[in-house]
Amino acid sequence: MNWKIVTIGKPALPWARDAVADYLARLSRTAKVEWMALKEGPVEQVEKAMMLAGEGSYRIALDERGKQMRSTALAQWIKSKELSATKRVCLFVGGADGHSQRFRESVQETWALSTMTLQHEMALIVLLEQIYRAGTINRGEPYHRE
Amino acid sequence: MNWKIVTIGKPALPWARDAVADYLARLSRTAKVEWMALKEGPVEQVEKAMMLAGEGSYRIALDERGKQMRSTALAQWIKSKELSATKRVCLFVGGADGHSQRFRESVQETWALSTMTLQHEMALIVLLEQIYRAGTINRGEPYHRE
Repeated sequence: MNWKIVTIGKPALPWARDAVADYLARLSRTAKVEWMALKEGPVEQVEKAMMLAGEGSYRIALDERGKQMRSTALAQWIKSKELSATKRVCLFVGGADGHSQRFRESVQETWALSTMTLQHEMALIVLLEQIYRAGTINRGEPYHRE
Repeated sequence: MNWKIVTIGKPALPWARDAVADYLARLSRTAKVEWMALKEGPVEQVEKAMMLAGEGSYRIALDERGKQMRSTALAQWIKSKELSATKRVCLFVGGADGHSQRFRESVQETWALSTMTLQHEMALIVLLEQIYRAGTINRGEPYHRE
């Protein structure tokens, strides 16, 4: 299963850039994860680009009003999607203003990393770490501890 | 109100160290936030040191089984604690294995930053950002957007 993670712009905070590079490098050893940073712009234009980026993919928006999962549930979710031969999952991290209602209604699922509003660069890092963590759970590696 | 944030060890990931320094510097402009990194060691010894560090403070453990809040609710919580003249809040971020049940029972509150297990260095960063965000909400600054 391929992963595509779509953000609006690239992280501006230097440590956030380093963190993203760190997790993308870790993930690349066992998964196909592509990160696509869209150009910032008016919300309608950006969301149009997001919808285009997600075409043909199983689409998930990240939003604090979304479904919450434990890390082990995310690992199970990935397993089930792999069993159902889902080819590509596309995850959308909103910008500073989050996603519009229209966009949230256009995706298959909405996930919340937290009920708290995460700074959007932090949300990307948390998301990458959770995908990495879920992989280690599914491979039985000792990274995750209950 | 003074904040004390207790972790076990210092972040090993370079970007996490930078992120912690970034948020501590931002917080220092408007709040009194002390970060205390305890020496790693056997869980009983570490939790004894944590209990000592929290003496006389309103104590909160971070744990994914804890209470979840929105960022605005955290801001409200801070206001109410300031109104009730709480002098010091002490927050405990667990190590890779989290907190023991005994420790969780010794604190006044348990908060969850996420239902997902956050890497403990990431948990510290998310926590610092939330305290910073709550401050901007209470001061009416434009950082947080609903």
